[in-house]
Amino acid sequence: MHFETALPLQSGASIRDYHLAYETYGHLNADKSNAVLICHALNASHHVAGVYADQAKSEGWWNNMIGPGKPVDTDRFFVIGVNNLGSCFGSTGPMHLHPDTGQVYGADFPVMTVEDWVNAQARLLDALGIAQLAAVMGGSLGGMQALSWTLQHPERVRHAVVVASAPNLTAENIAFNEVARRAIVTDPDFHEGHFYQHGVIPKRGLRIARMIGHITYLSDDVMNEKFGRQLREAVTGNDTGYRYSTQDVEFQIESYLRYQGDKFSEYFDANTYLLITRALDYFDPARQHGGDLSAALARASCKFLLVSFTTDWRFSPARSREVVKALLDNRRDVSYAEIDAPHGHDAFLLDDARYMNVVRSYFARIHTEISAEIAAGAAA
Amino acid sequence: MHFETALPLQSGASIRDYHLAYETYGHLNADKSNAVLICHALNASHHVAGVYADQAKSEGWWNNMIGPGKPVDTDRFFVIGVNNLGSCFGSTGPMHLHPDTGQVYGADFPVMTVEDWVNAQARLLDALGIAQLAAVMGGSLGGMQALSWTLQHPERVRHAVVVASAPNLTAENIAFNEVARRAIVTDPDFHEGHFYQHGVIPKRGLRIARMIGHITYLSDDVMNEKFGRQLREAVTGNDTGYRYSTQDVEFQIESYLRYQGDKFSEYFDANTYLLITRALDYFDPARQHGGDLSAALARASCKFLLVSFTTDWRFSPARSREVVKALLDNRRDVSYAEIDAPHGHDAFLLDDARYMNVVRSYFARIHTEISAEIAAGAAA
Repeated sequence: MHFETALPLQSGASIRDYHLAYETYGHLNADKSNAVLICHALNASHHVAGVYADQAKSEGWWNNMIGPGKPVDTDRFFVIGVNNLGSCFGSTGPMHLHPDTGQVYGADFPVMTVEDWVNAQARLLDALGIAQLAAVMGGSLGGMQALSWTLQHPERVRHAVVVASAPNLTAENIAFNEVARRAIVTDPDFHEGHFYQHGVIPKRGLRIARMIGHITYLSDDVMNEKFGRQLREAVTGNDTGYRYSTQDVEFQIESYLRYQGDKFSEYFDANTYLLITRALDYFDPARQHGGDLSAALARASCKFLLVSFTTDWRFSPARSREVVKALLDNRRDVSYAEIDAPHGHDAFLLDDARYMNVVRSYFARIHTEISAEIAAGAAA
Repeated sequence: MHFETALPLQSGASIRDYHLAYETYGHLNADKSNAVLICHALNASHHVAGVYADQAKSEGWWNNMIGPGKPVDTDRFFVIGVNNLGSCFGSTGPMHLHPDTGQVYGADFPVMTVEDWVNAQARLLDALGIAQLAAVMGGSLGGMQALSWTLQHPERVRHAVVVASAPNLTAENIAFNEVARRAIVTDPDFHEGHFYQHGVIPKRGLRIARMIGHITYLSDDVMNEKFGRQLREAVTGNDTGYRYSTQDVEFQIESYLRYQGDKFSEYFDANTYLLITRALDYFDPARQHGGDLSAALARASCKFLLVSFTTDWRFSPARSREVVKALLDNRRDVSYAEIDAPHGHDAFLLDDARYMNVVRSYFARIHTEISAEIAAGAAA
């Protein structure tokens, strides 16, 4: 969808003449009361569910969660996936042309915040004629957007589902983002963000960024279980099987990380990486309330489901509990599930029966609420 | 000290005509029974204690631990600090000349293991006329060397003090090492390890490596306490104080990491970084015993003190407890202290009254043992 009018941004800048890529699943009911907005995290898009008819391996990134008969049931709900501004999967981003200059944005793409994304999403809902969401839902950075919706547009959200998220980043979280950004920015192929004109891509930096990311997505336990100290290929002729090399791949975990880094560097935009990690760093609704999260969340009026995973050390259960506590301080209706899962932060994307059942039950409740209101409306 | 004879290495290669830089503190007693060898970790040297007369800020890296009247009391013990082969602080390393070719070693410097370092240290002790150590001591990678001493030369060690260490690296540990190595190796200034000839230094890679290292040395808690979400310099004119930039320093933690990375890249050798992290990866005494650490440690005959720190997530207390258990399985004399300290892995280098007292008491015990033997020898 094209938007001509300028969107004012938190930084004071604005963006105009932009596109938002979005997909919808299921049908909007006559009351327009069954819409669910899905917000994505770093490496994802509007393609949240289903497959493209003509493309192999084109499952949406939350296809296990969303679809007909799935926890977020598209036979009941009208689900909207939207790609955020600054991303590299369809919506306007750094690789597109700046309308003022006719040049590729590159590093001149405006800095986006979670709040800006939410406002852009709200405009999309306006265009779709949806006044209020049955639910807004997201994991990780997507969960931050869901939480922000409840503060920026409290009257437009009935339920917020915030999975594996946090009310802000810790110093350690910011530190990992910063190392990844430095790897990209100091790659000689970055050219201060204007690498498109030079016909190069800062792949070295992107690879390092992705490798760091992957380490923080997985738990120590799951890494030990999946890779442990296994060698990629033991050599013969000595007692250890080591090839004794500082640069060759020796352990399986190295091979895995290199592969993930290589793959990512083939398709992800370097400026997008900077923008999205910065949006993560900046998100901090308590900031303008002197760090008082309870005061910040007083604006929220919807009902909440929060989910965290025990082995997630990137956004630990303690961070979700901070949100739960702040909402309870405001006497909000909050459900909270702490799932005992081994997979670390990645667990929010994986199949876990307890996790899936929690979300399924919660959306069944939302469906019951909506159906009751429709029935009451018909009777009146 | 110069060593002409080739030292056979675990890889099958060997190194000859090499130097070991070392320092000693205190006096070797007549029985030669009061020697304590200190093994260093990644970014340290033979200069473990004291200051150089003509140099400001030249404190040894373990100066709080070692010296007259300190926990490792140089009025009682003859302390030896030695710089490992492949390092960049005085002993022969990748920046020195290969005796066969007359060219700088660079990437051709042989891969070193913990076992190789221990054997090189043993030769140094031979040259110093020390048959048996009162104690071998080290933290982190230094602790691995101390542990390895008890297996390679069990008869030459009376006590081993293993601080903040582990019996091997986990997949996550290896993963962090690998990302750091990739950052260095893919820096265009690395030139496959032969950057010396090109008159350049792969500083970009070294900076990233050091930044990653620093994150893993600190606990999440201490990072939050020291830096939290503090901005380096809040701007005026908006509600948040953010400057809204993807590349400028915004948070204090970023400023700290960049500073640490810059400083490190000025003095640390890139090939040394690869060599030392690989030695960490390779250390795994249980490997040749089918992963059975108890079987591996059966060779050790000395007494042990192990120390770990609660917030150390790089080498967690659980890893030290594995060693303790394996030693107890072999009915060895083991003392173990788990120190409740907030500083993460770095705690092993910091002043903590309980930690210092544990080490002090342990060395007092060693001193009592030695003194009793000397008295018994004199009486006989």
